[in-house]
Formats: sequence, C-alpha cells, structure tokens
Amino acid sequence: MPIYDKQDYPTVDVRHFLEPGPVVLVSSAHKGETDIMTMGWHMIMEFSPALVGCIISPANHSHELVRRSGECVINVPTIELANQMVDIGNSTGTRIDKFKEFGLTAHTGNIVHAPMIGECFASFECRLAKDDMIDELGFFVWEVVKAHVDQTVTAPKTLHYRGRGEFMVAGDSLDLSARFKPEVL
Amino acid sequence: MPIYDKQDYPTVDVRHFLEPGPVVLVSSAHKGETDIMTMGWHMIMEFSPALVGCIISPANHSHELVRRSGECVINVPTIELANQMVDIGNSTGTRIDKFKEFGLTAHTGNIVHAPMIGECFASFECRLAKDDMIDELGFFVWEVVKAHVDQTVTAPKTLHYRGRGEFMVAGDSLDLSARFKPEVL
Repeated sequence: MPIYDKQDYPTVDVRHFLEPGPVVLVSSAHKGETDIMTMGWHMIMEFSPALVGCIISPANHSHELVRRSGECVINVPTIELANQMVDIGNSTGTRIDKFKEFGLTAHTGNIVHAPMIGECFASFECRLAKDDMIDELGFFVWEVVKAHVDQTVTAPKTLHYRGRGEFMVAGDSLDLSARFKPEVL
Repeated sequence: MPIYDKQDYPTVDVRHFLEPGPVVLVSSAHKGETDIMTMGWHMIMEFSPALVGCIISPANHSHELVRRSGECVINVPTIELANQMVDIGNSTGTRIDKFKEFGLTAHTGNIVHAPMIGECFASFECRLAKDDMIDELGFFVWEVVKAHVDQTVTAPKTLHYRGRGEFMVAGDSLDLSARFKPEVL
C-alpha cells in the first residue's frame, strides 16, 4: 500500500471529498491510547467554519477517546484499503492496536494529537465543535481545523456503504459546471 | 423519463439508498404551495426510528415550507435526471412551480402531504423529529415514516456532488459480506 504525500488543503473545500459520501476511517488518541474506526454516517454541515457531523455510537471504543480528547482525524481511504476497512469495523480497539494490527502508518498531525493515516490520500484534523446531541444520538459536530490532501489523486475510488456487506465503488466523474449559474460554483 | 412503480420498503433499511451519499431531491408542500430542492448535505442518524439529518438553509425557499409543515419527501434521483437536478438547484420555488417547470410528476404520499416525485426510484416520506439546530445551522432531523422503492432498480446510477459543478457517478458494486462478522450484517 502506498503512503501518500499530502499537502495543505483549504478546509472550506473538504466537501470535495466528504460530500460524495465515502466510508471514512476515524483515528483518535487519548492518554497514550489510539484507535481507528470505520464510519459511514457523516455529512458536511457548513463551509466556514468547516463543520462535519457524524455518528459515533457509545458502543464504539472510539466514542470515549474522541469525546474525552475532543479531537479526531477523518481519513478518506480508497478501494486498496477495502479489506482493512472491513476488518477495522469488525474489531475493537479495546483489545488491539489497530495501526499495528492492520499495517497502517500513524503520521503526526499539525494541530490535534490524533494520528493521521499515511495510507489514506486525505486526512482532516478535527476539533469538537458541538456536543449537544452526543448523549442522545452519539452525534458529534466537528470543525475541520486543518486539511491534508494528496492532490495528485484526482478521481479517488472511494467506497460507499449500502449495508449488508455491500459497497458502491466511486465511478466516473461528470462535469456539469457549464449548466450551473456562475455565482453558485 | 420513466415513472417508477414503487412498493413499500422497510424504513429501517433506507440506509441502503442514502448512506452511499447521493444528491437527493427534497419535495415539500405547505398551504397549497409545493417546492423541490436539490440537496447533498444529509446523513443517516439512526436505524429505528429511521432518522435522517440534513441541512436546508434559510436561503432555500423550501426551508419555510418544510419547517412550517414539519414534513418533506426525500427522493433519490439517478443520472437520467442530472440536468433537472442542476436546474432545480439553480432556480427558486418562489417564482415557479418546479414540478411543472421541470416536467416532474407529483404522486401523493401515504402519510405526509409533501408530494413524491414519480421519476425517482425511491421516495421517503419524512416527519420532523428534531428542530433544536434549525435556527443555528439549518439542521433538520427527520424520521422516515414511510419508504417507497422500486426494487427492480438494483444498482442505481446515483450522482454524488463534489462541488464546483462536478459529480461522481455511482460505479460498480463490491460485495464484501463474506468478510464481515455475521452478527454485524
């Protein structure tokens, strides 16, 4: 698996990678412990500040780590990591070090303490922005405080979960920009 | 454009169509007025009750209609409706009847008053479940109270927005169910 060479990327544009709806890997750290979880329930909520909402259930070991640290990294994997994505979702970080177990490389972020995953072409450092609905629904609202993207990856083959073990793989690109009003682009 | 023959579908399984992250069309009705908006910022939040969160900004004419009626229908279009999806997003319902303008067929739902779009293969009738974050972020949480799907559509070519007028078209299916623990399927 390649380790990507990521550069700084504008946080206002993280929609480019998250709005299509890929399964992501959420990495976290708290008091020397790290974890990774596979997550499909997320959405862009605001351009600036760049807000991302997601569900992380208390049943996930990561819940405690992201809640106590108030930080995470949202990493976007592609099809080369398909098996690891499933295996990470099928295991729990209370028993194993997922970076070691799944052969992933932890890179240090610029702002948060949660590690970035080297084998993902995009990583977004996040700080907890709203906690109102954590207790009720496990709903976290994050501000992306720093974005890192390998911009040589132009049409990432991301995976999109349908449930029951079935994924949709990102297909062709379709440019309809000529049909848009210029002011909304 | 075909008009789909939709059947009842379990609300607990609407993730199958929404979790992959397609652009959807939100239809609404209030006091005799109807509207449709194109929407990409949404997520599954709970299986049962089937909750879906989404952002509908006050800048959208639909905001007032869905807020006052407490209802909407989330319709999932495919690539055949690409031009209409863009044009709907580029126009405002204060000036036109979008069903008439874009040649779409309004079907009556079973529970809510908002119309379903006949040319979409899946339509989810929704009632407002949580309004806590509407004022701050335009964030609505809906309960899907009735789902309608044409189940002959097995690998829908949905569109997934990247911003700047560019879409990703849903590609191949990848079945990794054999790799999952049976109890999480």
